[in-house]
Amino acid sequence: MDIATPIATTKQEALTARYGAATPAAGPWNEHIALLLSHRSIRGYRPDAPPAGTLETLVAAAQSAATSSNLQTWSVVSVTDPAKRAAMAKLAGNQKHIEQCPIFLVWCADLSRNARMAEAEGRVLEGLPYLESFLVAAIDAALAAQNAVVAAESLGLSTVYIGALRNDPEQVAQLVALPPGVMGVFGLCVGYAAEGVANEVKPRLPQASVLHHDTYATEGEASLRAAYDGEMAAFSARQGMDNDNWSGRVLQRMGSIRALNGRDRLKAAVRALGFPLK
Amino acid sequence: MDIATPIATTKQEALTARYGAATPAAGPWNEHIALLLSHRSIRGYRPDAPPAGTLETLVAAAQSAATSSNLQTWSVVSVTDPAKRAAMAKLAGNQKHIEQCPIFLVWCADLSRNARMAEAEGRVLEGLPYLESFLVAAIDAALAAQNAVVAAESLGLSTVYIGALRNDPEQVAQLVALPPGVMGVFGLCVGYAAEGVANEVKPRLPQASVLHHDTYATEGEASLRAAYDGEMAAFSARQGMDNDNWSGRVLQRMGSIRALNGRDRLKAAVRALGFPLK
Repeated sequence: MDIATPIATTKQEALTARYGAATPAAGPWNEHIALLLSHRSIRGYRPDAPPAGTLETLVAAAQSAATSSNLQTWSVVSVTDPAKRAAMAKLAGNQKHIEQCPIFLVWCADLSRNARMAEAEGRVLEGLPYLESFLVAAIDAALAAQNAVVAAESLGLSTVYIGALRNDPEQVAQLVALPPGVMGVFGLCVGYAAEGVANEVKPRLPQASVLHHDTYATEGEASLRAAYDGEMAAFSARQGMDNDNWSGRVLQRMGSIRALNGRDRLKAAVRALGFPLK
Repeated sequence: MDIATPIATTKQEALTARYGAATPAAGPWNEHIALLLSHRSIRGYRPDAPPAGTLETLVAAAQSAATSSNLQTWSVVSVTDPAKRAAMAKLAGNQKHIEQCPIFLVWCADLSRNARMAEAEGRVLEGLPYLESFLVAAIDAALAAQNAVVAAESLGLSTVYIGALRNDPEQVAQLVALPPGVMGVFGLCVGYAAEGVANEVKPRLPQASVLHHDTYATEGEASLRAAYDGEMAAFSARQGMDNDNWSGRVLQRMGSIRALNGRDRLKAAVRALGFPLK
């Protein structure tokens, strides 16, 4: 095993890295949970190829995730062609790691395989045109991809999701020849972290902000956010980034149509790719 | 650790359980990957409570998953109230395990927390009304939930996702008092498998059906499906279920509007819950 960044060895260390001062009262612990807590997204890769069969191991993990009614409405495209990689890096806002990483995967919501099956059986799948079916496909792709991420990280590989493939889903579809009813919902870089790129575990909101008991509650939310803004400002400073807090970043990312980088037309793109979203 | 069902000990055993005869040429392997491959959904639970702090451990794992631009647009509601559990079991088509399991979680796409933050800062998040933001929230909820599933299974707990909460998202929202901009996208049962309920690992489609290389390809798909239909028919027979194959199940689940169990009106429900899907 080639561990790019060491896994925090104690529960308390792992929780402090993830939550700062606001550590939750977590109970049971083991090496699997330590691995999950150690996740960080990595945006720079060495060219070194992982061992033979790594891609197939990751896909076996992905296919082992739950899938709604065993419909298996997702696919994954492994992209190695340098020209396709370059085009995807460009449409994703010049994310160079898409070209660097030894494994780049396009995770797809895929209703087309089941549609082809039905056609071969002389049937029509009436449920396909609905928002429900698109949502099932996107969620199942996400469950599968997350298993692949856990498997990759267990092997000392690093990862980063590429939501920016949704800047231009039609171009992605064209690059890898997706038929109607298939859409790349996000990408994933997999590889060994480049020297000096491995960063700290990023703190998250206190559990009290995201975990609710029987009733959704917002009491105390303002002070929880203030505390988290402080944690994120300190994190950014330690990483040598602008002394930025969480609220500021969210306002920047979601505040304007312009920040969507073209994803304000996602609905039209999804429909053009064969999902009517009825 | 209380392992409800033993984890296949060798790579070959695990791959055979998951793929039948069509085992992929998987490479690297370790105990984390063995855990992922051993997943099966469980629909019957003992009432025994897991150790104190288990919920918090699962949520720490969930929050450690990647989240788009660190927006953290998801929440989770732990439902313990028996009346709420009963109502959810009923709307989900009388799934009794929703009432049985010691931990029941409603995973939510949640744009409301960021909206409240912006409001407090005197700003408006122009990106919120778009399909993109709903999709990001649903995908991030799925990534988080899958980490919780892996953590639970590593502790000997079993799980099953409950997509049927989408049969009536408005009722779910009312039961746990979700504000506008929050929707329960799926539920999750967590607990110790009841005696005799633990079943075999379910076979999945051959990797060649879901994994594509640079270009989406359908050559050989018909024979891959025929082989998988055979594996699933044999699996069903071993489980004492109707001698049913995959194609038949998909036609049943997606063939008619009626099989959507009300989810043909999901778009209206999502909009009513505060996601305009622009």
